[in-house]
Amino acid sequence: MNYRFSGRMGRVPESFLAELFRVSAVPRVISFAGGLPGSAYIDVTGIRDAAREVFAEDGRKALQYTTTDGYLPLREFIADRYRRRLGLPATPEEIQIVNGSQQCLDLVAKIFLDPGDAVGMERPGYLGAIEAFSLYEPVVHPVPLEEDGPNLGAFESVVRKHVPKFFYGIPNSQNPSGTTYSQEKRRGVAEVLEGTGTVFYEDDAFGELFFDGQPRPPVKRYLPDQTVISGSFSKIVAPGMRIGWIFAPVPVLREFNVAKQAADLHSNFLCQVILHRYLATHDLDAHVRKISAVYGRHCRLMCDLLDDLMPSGMTHTNPEGGMFMTAALPSGVSSMEVFREGVKEGVAVLPGVPFYVNGGGEGTIRLNFSAAGEEEIAEGMHRLARVMRRLA
Amino acid sequence: MNYRFSGRMGRVPESFLAELFRVSAVPRVISFAGGLPGSAYIDVTGIRDAAREVFAEDGRKALQYTTTDGYLPLREFIADRYRRRLGLPATPEEIQIVNGSQQCLDLVAKIFLDPGDAVGMERPGYLGAIEAFSLYEPVVHPVPLEEDGPNLGAFESVVRKHVPKFFYGIPNSQNPSGTTYSQEKRRGVAEVLEGTGTVFYEDDAFGELFFDGQPRPPVKRYLPDQTVISGSFSKIVAPGMRIGWIFAPVPVLREFNVAKQAADLHSNFLCQVILHRYLATHDLDAHVRKISAVYGRHCRLMCDLLDDLMPSGMTHTNPEGGMFMTAALPSGVSSMEVFREGVKEGVAVLPGVPFYVNGGGEGTIRLNFSAAGEEEIAEGMHRLARVMRRLA
Repeated sequence: MNYRFSGRMGRVPESFLAELFRVSAVPRVISFAGGLPGSAYIDVTGIRDAAREVFAEDGRKALQYTTTDGYLPLREFIADRYRRRLGLPATPEEIQIVNGSQQCLDLVAKIFLDPGDAVGMERPGYLGAIEAFSLYEPVVHPVPLEEDGPNLGAFESVVRKHVPKFFYGIPNSQNPSGTTYSQEKRRGVAEVLEGTGTVFYEDDAFGELFFDGQPRPPVKRYLPDQTVISGSFSKIVAPGMRIGWIFAPVPVLREFNVAKQAADLHSNFLCQVILHRYLATHDLDAHVRKISAVYGRHCRLMCDLLDDLMPSGMTHTNPEGGMFMTAALPSGVSSMEVFREGVKEGVAVLPGVPFYVNGGGEGTIRLNFSAAGEEEIAEGMHRLARVMRRLA
Repeated sequence: MNYRFSGRMGRVPESFLAELFRVSAVPRVISFAGGLPGSAYIDVTGIRDAAREVFAEDGRKALQYTTTDGYLPLREFIADRYRRRLGLPATPEEIQIVNGSQQCLDLVAKIFLDPGDAVGMERPGYLGAIEAFSLYEPVVHPVPLEEDGPNLGAFESVVRKHVPKFFYGIPNSQNPSGTTYSQEKRRGVAEVLEGTGTVFYEDDAFGELFFDGQPRPPVKRYLPDQTVISGSFSKIVAPGMRIGWIFAPVPVLREFNVAKQAADLHSNFLCQVILHRYLATHDLDAHVRKISAVYGRHCRLMCDLLDDLMPSGMTHTNPEGGMFMTAALPSGVSSMEVFREGVKEGVAVLPGVPFYVNGGGEGTIRLNFSAAGEEEIAEGMHRLARVMRRLA
């Protein structure tokens, strides 16, 4: 049969993610290409205990259908954490549970975008967002990301000229660059947006993972009614449960809820109840401090080895948190070559190309420092150095 | 702020589902309005034991990210069950795990529909499908459902005239009517579609729940490359895990996989692994026989009480399986009145209106017979009889 697929399917950029998951699964390959949190730092025992308690007390309820918005005690936990950690006056009525923050990318695009609408995002920008948005056929206007956040002149020009439906950004430890917006850039972004028709879509997947343990003020603080934040338990508890959330003004959440209900009725309730039980009976702050400290050590090790082992002309960002950094290759070296030669040598990196909407990124790679342990990082960097010396 | 939502959000019909879940949650109201499987027949102990084993053996893996297509052993189980139960030559490569079959409604629409495209569906048709499809702005062509399936003349006329991207149907114990396609209608539908550009989207949420325990041949048997089937563990194991699947030709599944990845990367892996462990260590056939027998008793009781207690002029369908039937009200009685007066009397029914795409259904109500126990059904039918006598 000649299947007649929708026009939007032709807009999706070729995906590296599936390919990457496969490469990441080959045992002898040390992968810096994926985006997995460190498996060693998932509290399997704690989650197991929480699950046992849920089955003993609430099992029948947790296995039944529930409402689209999600488990109220979990939404209360999230709202309370915003108030306590970030001083944001959040209420459970502004929180909706989703299947990891990837689902926010799909549903925010769905409620805002008609084909041809303008969207702003960072350049480089998160690959998963580029893919999700592409299915709604917007015109994407990238704004160059500098060391301390988006170039404000370019940002203002995109907002004034195209009035995007929303600007998508990751102010904390951006994926792929590892960049964190400075305080000035946060204020600057809010000042440019204030009073315009453009929503700020603040993806905060990594805000809990600053190596110094200090939270940074979200853009939503400066622009409360005009900002939606997405968050996730994937990086701080466990990705396999697929539990994230959106925190948005009530009129936005009302539309979001309609889209969520049509998409899958509600997120898996059993995991919502288990996760809430885990959070209520364990010290998330202590757990997050532990993971952040480990990732900080991993990051420093990777930076040091990049500085020590790689040929001259190779530079890298210096993340303050999160799970990723970007390295710029010596001129003339192609990231696709590094990817292909790397896999042969037993090390996987992610070419920068898919993070650039209108071409570019050939001379960059994204490196993940959360999944591999310190010994693997050391060995992987030596393998990468051999590849780089061959290619440079 | 004046939020500029997408045009598609204006296409969504006003939803009853959220309202219903709320009404269903009021303790003194006996609800025939929702679509919950009977809580008493969820095997909490069995799932608890499966969860315990998973945490002991595979916990760390099950809590990590996985691939978009889903847990291979679970997909093998599903493919094997198609081969064994229905004689369909299914392979795991044709199966993709989703968040309950509702997610198939969203993603099948996403991969096939451009705004203005034609879609065919039964009239009355499943409310959740109408909502999900509406976000892709198709033109929906309803085909009247008769006692034994769609009116074939009307079906052929829609297919010839509008060549819908797909026709969405529920051949087994349809929601809301409880109707099951006859063998002739199944063949007839396949014959009309064969060689056209229209895919048959066969929603099989209820095919395991025939009261006589006998499976009916799926339309996919007659039209293998042109049919996608969706299935779900919600009605036969537990809805709170949100695990369903699509079974589709590989070229369709490839596009579906792209859309699924963009939507939420993958369905919750912990529940996939727990569910597979449960299925591998428990007798699903015996469990399904038990539920089907109970629902059969519920259904007969409800039919008998409708016949005995209601005023003349009220009729109902006679389901062979599933969870729903439709009743036609005496002429002049409005289903919205029955809904409102019913809630006051302590019984909730679902007005038929939202199941009719272009108006209609005012004189029908949908009745669920899976959620309430036999005593509740008896008491609820007496309450409904009081309402009906007042209104008739």
